[in-house]
Amino acid sequence: MANKSKGSNTERDLLHKFWSTGKWCAIRSAGSGSMKYPGPDLLVGNLFRRMSIECKSTKDDKVYLNEHDVEQLKEFSKVFDAKPLFAVKFSKKDWLFLAIEDLQKTPKGYVIDSKVAELRGLSFGEITSY
Amino acid sequence: MANKSKGSNTERDLLHKFWSTGKWCAIRSAGSGSMKYPGPDLLVGNLFRRMSIECKSTKDDKVYLNEHDVEQLKEFSKVFDAKPLFAVKFSKKDWLFLAIEDLQKTPKGYVIDSKVAELRGLSFGEITSY
Repeated sequence: MANKSKGSNTERDLLHKFWSTGKWCAIRSAGSGSMKYPGPDLLVGNLFRRMSIECKSTKDDKVYLNEHDVEQLKEFSKVFDAKPLFAVKFSKKDWLFLAIEDLQKTPKGYVIDSKVAELRGLSFGEITSY
Repeated sequence: MANKSKGSNTERDLLHKFWSTGKWCAIRSAGSGSMKYPGPDLLVGNLFRRMSIECKSTKDDKVYLNEHDVEQLKEFSKVFDAKPLFAVKFSKKDWLFLAIEDLQKTPKGYVIDSKVAELRGLSFGEITSY
């Protein structure tokens, strides 16, 4: 399956997970990857708070992000008064959610290492329960 | 052109209009018409406020809305702390924006009449400037 449609499928799975809680609303951004505008893959909220989420899934044990990925998520999150988060899905693992301060800096941008993600990341249950 | 893709095109036009102001961010919801979940076609915001917008374009001089259209927009808007608006585009006219209190009740739902829309609706310039 092409990377793009595979990415869309994992985003849709996460969209369904939020709705299935019965407490969270979620929208998936149309063509978020191909549009020239900033914006997260998902914007979710309950009656108390909002989160803007960039989704990344990989078969590797690292996810690389460039400065632009991070800056555009920050900018957008400010406007929508939402907490910016990166959702990462490593093969055969559950989604983990990392805040920008949990990313590791590299010379060219940021990296999320699967081991670090397991230490610092929050599970879906954790981010939706508090 | 099929109604669905025509609808998407008018939504995209409006998305571009918001971004082109240089002050507003906007996201278009993926598959908003076909998903089973509530949600607006567009969610827009600047640093001061947010609006959730359901887009309707027609060659007719009336747009009919059912109770469900209105209720789902209200519900979603509460979660995202956004002002719910209907954006209507009648043939050869500019977009007009109506709040829920500006809709006219019918036995089965609501109607937006082009004449009433011109009286009560706000232009794109008006809704983005204050």
